[in-house]
Amino acid sequence: MHELEFQVTIQDDRTKARLGKIFTDHGEIQTPVFMPVGTAGTVKGVTQQELAGLGAEIILSNTYHLYLRPGHELIRELGGLHSFICWPRPILTDSGGFQVFSISPLRHISEEGVSFRSHLDGSSHFLSPEKAVEIQMSLGADLLMVFDECIAYPSDFLITREGVERTLRWALKSKQAFDSYGGGLWPHRQWLFGIGQGGIYPELRNECIDRLIDIDFPGYAIGGLAVGEPKNLMYDIVELSVERLPSTKPRYLMGVGTPRDLIECISHGVDMFDCVLPTRNARNGWLFTHGGHIVIKNAQYAKDPRPIDERCSCMVCRYYSRAYLRHLFQANEILASILNTHHNLYFYLDTIREIRDAIASRRLLDYLTECRTRQEMV
Amino acid sequence: MHELEFQVTIQDDRTKARLGKIFTDHGEIQTPVFMPVGTAGTVKGVTQQELAGLGAEIILSNTYHLYLRPGHELIRELGGLHSFICWPRPILTDSGGFQVFSISPLRHISEEGVSFRSHLDGSSHFLSPEKAVEIQMSLGADLLMVFDECIAYPSDFLITREGVERTLRWALKSKQAFDSYGGGLWPHRQWLFGIGQGGIYPELRNECIDRLIDIDFPGYAIGGLAVGEPKNLMYDIVELSVERLPSTKPRYLMGVGTPRDLIECISHGVDMFDCVLPTRNARNGWLFTHGGHIVIKNAQYAKDPRPIDERCSCMVCRYYSRAYLRHLFQANEILASILNTHHNLYFYLDTIREIRDAIASRRLLDYLTECRTRQEMV
Repeated sequence: MHELEFQVTIQDDRTKARLGKIFTDHGEIQTPVFMPVGTAGTVKGVTQQELAGLGAEIILSNTYHLYLRPGHELIRELGGLHSFICWPRPILTDSGGFQVFSISPLRHISEEGVSFRSHLDGSSHFLSPEKAVEIQMSLGADLLMVFDECIAYPSDFLITREGVERTLRWALKSKQAFDSYGGGLWPHRQWLFGIGQGGIYPELRNECIDRLIDIDFPGYAIGGLAVGEPKNLMYDIVELSVERLPSTKPRYLMGVGTPRDLIECISHGVDMFDCVLPTRNARNGWLFTHGGHIVIKNAQYAKDPRPIDERCSCMVCRYYSRAYLRHLFQANEILASILNTHHNLYFYLDTIREIRDAIASRRLLDYLTECRTRQEMV
Repeated sequence: MHELEFQVTIQDDRTKARLGKIFTDHGEIQTPVFMPVGTAGTVKGVTQQELAGLGAEIILSNTYHLYLRPGHELIRELGGLHSFICWPRPILTDSGGFQVFSISPLRHISEEGVSFRSHLDGSSHFLSPEKAVEIQMSLGADLLMVFDECIAYPSDFLITREGVERTLRWALKSKQAFDSYGGGLWPHRQWLFGIGQGGIYPELRNECIDRLIDIDFPGYAIGGLAVGEPKNLMYDIVELSVERLPSTKPRYLMGVGTPRDLIECISHGVDMFDCVLPTRNARNGWLFTHGGHIVIKNAQYAKDPRPIDERCSCMVCRYYSRAYLRHLFQANEILASILNTHHNLYFYLDTIREIRDAIASRRLLDYLTECRTRQEMV
């Protein structure tokens, strides 16, 4: 596997936060970074040009969805995912593990992998560490993830330990499969990240991370969080996981979270995040603002001429009123999803920019304290 | 009523086509013009900024829909439709007549107007010439339409004649209602257009137009076409109607039509068009190209790396492949509607620009002949 170049440019001295850069053949990624989720090869409601304009530096796409439709072979034939969706910047793909556990009906887990039925047409499929890597290689993602077992919350210690053991065996198999491609399928380089599991058990988390480090990956994710456990427990697991991870490699917290989660976890030293919250909530009319969220369908906004957020300078807040956005939502207009998504993504990406600025100017602890005292900050 | 300034800048000498300009307080409109339809205060699938970027100079909005939701009073309180939807260019509103006849269940027509039930919640409403004008005045449209009776196709001569008589009485009432506002409700000027009816009967069409001219409007529409009659019959009615209309005023063919319809009717002297075809078809995956339409869901496009239309230079054709667009459509992604709508609107607005160029360079007849010989041109 190639070395992944990752530079930590600033290490905060009052928190664990850090600024950094990841260098891929599709461009640099400033960290901390938020990756919008483009499940089926599209971040729902925005064009790729708009997404670039919003400042997204990398997006996440889902192996499970693209494997089922339109199929990774088709995407490979058409020049890979970057070309297929016209997104020249970096792409991270997940392994499909989370989806087969959370979306697919009738799954069966064995040592070799997971057999499952498609949520689209009921057809039978089998995902294994080798298959998940093959799909991601075919898609041409810059950053790939090992195939892991996502352990439900709550799960008892023994069940969780079994899941960790399987995750570790699958991590090794994923790496062996990845290494078997040698130079890879594409002119650009690809890297495979490991994923730590262990539920809410510190000793399992630590052991999983230690053994992943023994296998050796260019970056590490913390998986299996934000699945129902209390918030403070999540922060504790993140904190101890990050302390165990090598400081020289990127740390990615999967599927997290709210703006408050980003700030807290960045202060613990997390570098990368992805989450469907800004986009999914947008389509449901749930809009983020500096003064807390607003639910745009509420009658109180029917005649409200103000923008979503007076402190926001996104295109939507520059031009459109809450009253108009409420009307669009009530009328079930496509433009509601378009404008709400634009705003929420801008809010997330702008929050990350604010956090980076706070780290760069050594103000992160103050920024964090202020966020914690703002009750409305979710 | 204020005079509406309309300049014919070029009159083609081999067809009836002409180039012109309509001057409103929200800006100039080049004619011939195609008006995208923004039914509920949004052209479905595009932002107003994108719409302006596509070159739309005026949009149409629907009185019926805006009256029912969010209500014209609300829009008036929020500064009128231009302000509410953030569209600083001209807006034309229809009178709601067509919709109460085509959408609303349980309508009842009397001399005073039409009582109907909302298609949204079944509530009872009444539209009259006076009410239709009141709503449009409140919305603040630049160009308003009289309330008319849309006669179904086919209808016999006597039924159609009754409809024409009622349309004429309603036209007069609409104008009286409009004039009663004096200087109007807004700092900008507004104008009320008449609508000719008469089905497929030349003598009724002619009589209706003559009597509308007696009432005197700043512009005239041809209504009640493209409702099921044969294409050539429609072209014939358009031709005779246009000949009857004053050459010094804009002529607007309502609800028409395909790109071929635009070219044919422009050659007969029509100046203005609106139609849902480009936007509605886009959402159904029906895409216009210079070589005929394509239905993007078809399996033949699954691996097609070409743009929708190799002769098109829109954003979608610059960046995205048919294969990707098919995938988006199959996956029911919002981006399918966004990109398909962008392309189809560009195609329509670009076709109109081509036609204007052809008129300006005295090539319209050749252009028309070429279109007629292209079998695929719909």
